[in-house]
Amino acid sequence: MPLPSLTTFVAGQHGRWLIERIEAVSGESLPAADRLNLIEGWHPPQAAQTSWILRGHTSNLRYTTQAEADRLAAVAEGLDRPNATCAALIPIRKSETWWNLPQDRRRSLLQEQSHHITIGLEYLPAVARRLHHSRDLGEPFDFITWFEYAPEYSTAFEDLVRRLRKTEEWRYVDREIDIRLIRSEL
Amino acid sequence: MPLPSLTTFVAGQHGRWLIERIEAVSGESLPAADRLNLIEGWHPPQAAQTSWILRGHTSNLRYTTQAEADRLAAVAEGLDRPNATCAALIPIRKSETWWNLPQDRRRSLLQEQSHHITIGLEYLPAVARRLHHSRDLGEPFDFITWFEYAPEYSTAFEDLVRRLRKTEEWRYVDREIDIRLIRSEL
Repeated sequence: MPLPSLTTFVAGQHGRWLIERIEAVSGESLPAADRLNLIEGWHPPQAAQTSWILRGHTSNLRYTTQAEADRLAAVAEGLDRPNATCAALIPIRKSETWWNLPQDRRRSLLQEQSHHITIGLEYLPAVARRLHHSRDLGEPFDFITWFEYAPEYSTAFEDLVRRLRKTEEWRYVDREIDIRLIRSEL
Repeated sequence: MPLPSLTTFVAGQHGRWLIERIEAVSGESLPAADRLNLIEGWHPPQAAQTSWILRGHTSNLRYTTQAEADRLAAVAEGLDRPNATCAALIPIRKSETWWNLPQDRRRSLLQEQSHHITIGLEYLPAVARRLHHSRDLGEPFDFITWFEYAPEYSTAFEDLVRRLRKTEEWRYVDREIDIRLIRSEL
């Protein structure tokens, strides 16, 4: 696992990813934009060309056990596969109630009650993902997850997000934006 | 529990806390300085007056269970008690081996094998503490813990840090600086 690395998601007129739609699942939406650029590191805002900017960092595992990590590692594939031309950027924020829960209660809600890790595992290796943490940076969202998959797995991906949104864990999500993208080099 | 808040620890010629000593327990030390200032929020470096700067943010509980959190909350006291004129600032860094462990292995090392939470509980309410996370900010340390206690608990505090440093968990600490301070308004 690499050191924590910061990614800046810049929505505007430029970038490798064409934004198909921005849908507010819960709470306030984000402004419309044509394209998204993923930049490694801290990227200062450039107001003239930018609709919005989100930032998050990768980190160590927060809930996953050794057995679960082994199962995930055995089947997961990385980002940037040539055929994975569909992407989803899903920033979420959880409630203060969630964050005030101790570690064992959050773990129990996430996996034992909601099967979050197990559900995600069912969609590997088709859906590759990278989780970014934002809460401790003072950002508007707590997490930003970036997913990549081939067009033939679009239906499977809809199934994945629909199942997660029905879980007990998701009752603690108070803002969620679902942004879908297509890789399209300019 | 409040939202994550960033603290900047500025060592130099100014500040409420007089630095008594800076001791490298493991790894490279920090430069000498006369005083330490704790500033809420991001504080830009001012090279002329500053020896070193560390930054960390409070966050949600990472390992503590509900039962442990209840026991801690029942006896803990806050910072800034009038008689707590002694302080310790202890930045530590853990190895990549630690950070690559899954959540259950780190929890087991921290509490079941090393009794970190239980040992800390024995010194409450005498020793008040605030944990700051630094790793995800790209800082040189992973954690910065700030302790405050009255002079009559100095021996107890030495006992606390000596016990923690003998634990299995501490085998994963590859840099640790122990900085002791006395409150002294200029």
